[in-house]
Amino acid sequence: MSKTLRIDFNNMLKENIGEHGLSEKEVEAQISKAKQVYDALEKKRESTTWRDLPFNQGDIVADISKTGEYIRENFESFVVFGIGGSALGSKALFTALKHLHHNELSAEKRKAPKFYVIDNVDPDKMNALFDVIDIKNTAFHVISKSGNTVETVSQFAIALKRLKELLGDDYKKNIVITTDKETGNMKRIADENAFKTFIVPDGVGGRFSVFSPVGLLSASVLNIDIDALLRGAGDMDKMSRTDNISKNPAFMYAALYVAAMKKGVNISVVMPYADGLLFTAEWYAQLWAESLGKQIDNHGNKVNFGQTPVRALGVTDQHSQVQLYNEGPFDKVITFIKVENPSTTLEIPVAPINLHDAAYLQGQTLNELILAELSATEYAVTKAGKMNMMISLNKVDEYTFGMLLSFYEVATAAAGELLEIDAFNQPGVEEGKIATFALMGREGYEDKRKELERQKNKKAEFIFDF
Amino acid sequence: MSKTLRIDFNNMLKENIGEHGLSEKEVEAQISKAKQVYDALEKKRESTTWRDLPFNQGDIVADISKTGEYIRENFESFVVFGIGGSALGSKALFTALKHLHHNELSAEKRKAPKFYVIDNVDPDKMNALFDVIDIKNTAFHVISKSGNTVETVSQFAIALKRLKELLGDDYKKNIVITTDKETGNMKRIADENAFKTFIVPDGVGGRFSVFSPVGLLSASVLNIDIDALLRGAGDMDKMSRTDNISKNPAFMYAALYVAAMKKGVNISVVMPYADGLLFTAEWYAQLWAESLGKQIDNHGNKVNFGQTPVRALGVTDQHSQVQLYNEGPFDKVITFIKVENPSTTLEIPVAPINLHDAAYLQGQTLNELILAELSATEYAVTKAGKMNMMISLNKVDEYTFGMLLSFYEVATAAAGELLEIDAFNQPGVEEGKIATFALMGREGYEDKRKELERQKNKKAEFIFDF
Repeated sequence: MSKTLRIDFNNMLKENIGEHGLSEKEVEAQISKAKQVYDALEKKRESTTWRDLPFNQGDIVADISKTGEYIRENFESFVVFGIGGSALGSKALFTALKHLHHNELSAEKRKAPKFYVIDNVDPDKMNALFDVIDIKNTAFHVISKSGNTVETVSQFAIALKRLKELLGDDYKKNIVITTDKETGNMKRIADENAFKTFIVPDGVGGRFSVFSPVGLLSASVLNIDIDALLRGAGDMDKMSRTDNISKNPAFMYAALYVAAMKKGVNISVVMPYADGLLFTAEWYAQLWAESLGKQIDNHGNKVNFGQTPVRALGVTDQHSQVQLYNEGPFDKVITFIKVENPSTTLEIPVAPINLHDAAYLQGQTLNELILAELSATEYAVTKAGKMNMMISLNKVDEYTFGMLLSFYEVATAAAGELLEIDAFNQPGVEEGKIATFALMGREGYEDKRKELERQKNKKAEFIFDF
Repeated sequence: MSKTLRIDFNNMLKENIGEHGLSEKEVEAQISKAKQVYDALEKKRESTTWRDLPFNQGDIVADISKTGEYIRENFESFVVFGIGGSALGSKALFTALKHLHHNELSAEKRKAPKFYVIDNVDPDKMNALFDVIDIKNTAFHVISKSGNTVETVSQFAIALKRLKELLGDDYKKNIVITTDKETGNMKRIADENAFKTFIVPDGVGGRFSVFSPVGLLSASVLNIDIDALLRGAGDMDKMSRTDNISKNPAFMYAALYVAAMKKGVNISVVMPYADGLLFTAEWYAQLWAESLGKQIDNHGNKVNFGQTPVRALGVTDQHSQVQLYNEGPFDKVITFIKVENPSTTLEIPVAPINLHDAAYLQGQTLNELILAELSATEYAVTKAGKMNMMISLNKVDEYTFGMLLSFYEVATAAAGELLEIDAFNQPGVEEGKIATFALMGREGYEDKRKELERQKNKKAEFIFDF
């Protein structure tokens, strides 16, 4: 049993998994840079203000709690309009810390509004949402740093029109905005209309924003203990401020994963054994992919770095992906996430019929079974010589979950330093954004539109149309 | 606009994406084996009976429809107990073809029972299910070929006990079993207790079972048109029975993906631009991973083949993964799935407030926006030199969806032939299953248990416990 969190990296190593593991030399090459990573991150401390979020939000947290309480008590549903980093933190918090069929519970049992994160512009999905919410009784949290996020603004326009039609001038109480401090289109809109507004501080990129109002307002509406969450995040952040890597698990994670990447391991599987942590893996997938997937390093070299995150679910994906993990290429490292104490217990009872060969299961619990299957899978992939590691959570509560997310944030920043890339920008999404502006007819993008409309030479034999 | 399905492979090729694309020679090396693949698959036709499912199930379909109707009219909820291939087909059908908030609709609007696929043994998830269903009014479909699937049997025992307590001897009407034809533990249980039973025919492996009762009973309960589904699957199967690869899109897919794999492209991203197709990507992920992730080829060589499937969602993951796809390594091929005509339309209306820089969006539709974003992303990844291809569906109806699933099944089988591996077994999951039996105390696995309990030598400096 772990006290809070226990992280075991031993199965990354040659001596435990054989020839495809990390050698002492490969480990040492990264571990030896701990001081350098520490200095670099400390130097960036002023610009990477997401690291301060656990410590400097006293008044903001009070405001969030007040707003969250107001929404909780006055609305039937709460909808987040946001995408990427504006959505994934909320999804991770919701699934990890709330009932797994929250929206299907009665209002008494739920004790909080129904909860929806709308992070796509699929018309069928959006229409489906409007089929199940009573819009008058719904609060919308609209999150966009710039206010030019096409997805979020489009959703916002749709909700605004319907709210206004139903509620007249009273509709503004159904809206909360979270956006940039001073500039940007959404700030302007918020100010002009006096919407309740929260700020994303400078230096808090979308994928590092879960502990800002972006994630915390959802938490508050859902009655999740924000203070404990931030305490966990803060304690991990403090633990990460040392160049002694044997005391700094986030640095160790960065060092071993970068060592694996340098060896050609280009896939990072995160496989929690808990349905509630599936979106934590999804949140990690953005953090790791956007931060480290970079074409150019700090010295201007073309490097095309990046490790592709894959989210898997135990035990479910044992019956889908583990055949590949065991027998396929040595191209991945698997992070197992264990929950030692789920919130509930469930016995496999003696059935009213004879189960014959399966009778031995009776009298045991699903809690035992899921942990046995995790041990069995860890054993099998280790025996197959595949890199893996284990994060064990004593339980999934706010404090522990805050620690876990903070651990991943710092680990990602540290990996950026080891790779000598900028972990905090995302230049690679610009091309697609500009092309979308062009195709949707935004002013100033006419030339790009012409380029996009130019016919490609396509070979007919590679097109099938039937 | 495509008629039904349109598949465009052009962006796999060097001439469209540059140096990291497939060369003519690389393509030719695989395409030239079409006759060989065709002969091999025809020869296997008798053992790969999943290919006959669209054609030979007349009476079975009638029975499924009758049973489906009975459940639809007499139960409030329908729960599938199954895992891997016993779950993913149902999940894919449900999300693709039903309302995206089905379980939250009123009974009148839903016109079918609430629907749950329980493919994990997380006690919190299972308890959450029992919090929201009325077990007396719930039908359970228990799917296990062998009847020794620990997850499914455990779930079954839990449901049996509760049903018996609530309904007495009347509880058997709430249960349907799908299992092996003649042998196995579940068949024995089904026979002894006279449960309503469907059969998984020999030669239909879990991941190829969606068109058997495994998937079709869910479809029928949900009022999905089984006949149209099977017609689509059948038409694609017929289309795939030619060695003329220019008429056989499934073979072309196999040829180009294997060519990519031989070049070191070890990741296959499937990125539908439709929330409803997310579980289709999940279904594909099992099919592709379990079928092609193999250690030993047909000649006994140790090959460790396999390409890791990654499911992504457009537009959502543009804000999470596309930074990596554009700027990261040349290690993946991306399949975009386009839905030209979603079931519904949604306008971005003129908002009651000034949206300033985002005002240009007003008057357009989400339908236009999602397609523009897909084009923009396709453009960006192509410009970045990353292999990609496009599957366009005119719309997501039963016929088209049947075609799509059948396309992937045949493509996977064909890829197995090109790689000269057995695409139909899964020896790599045995180790974990045996270890689970051992840890759960099944008789006959005592030695394995001792092996598992042996303490590993672990280095303390790679363990963090706090």
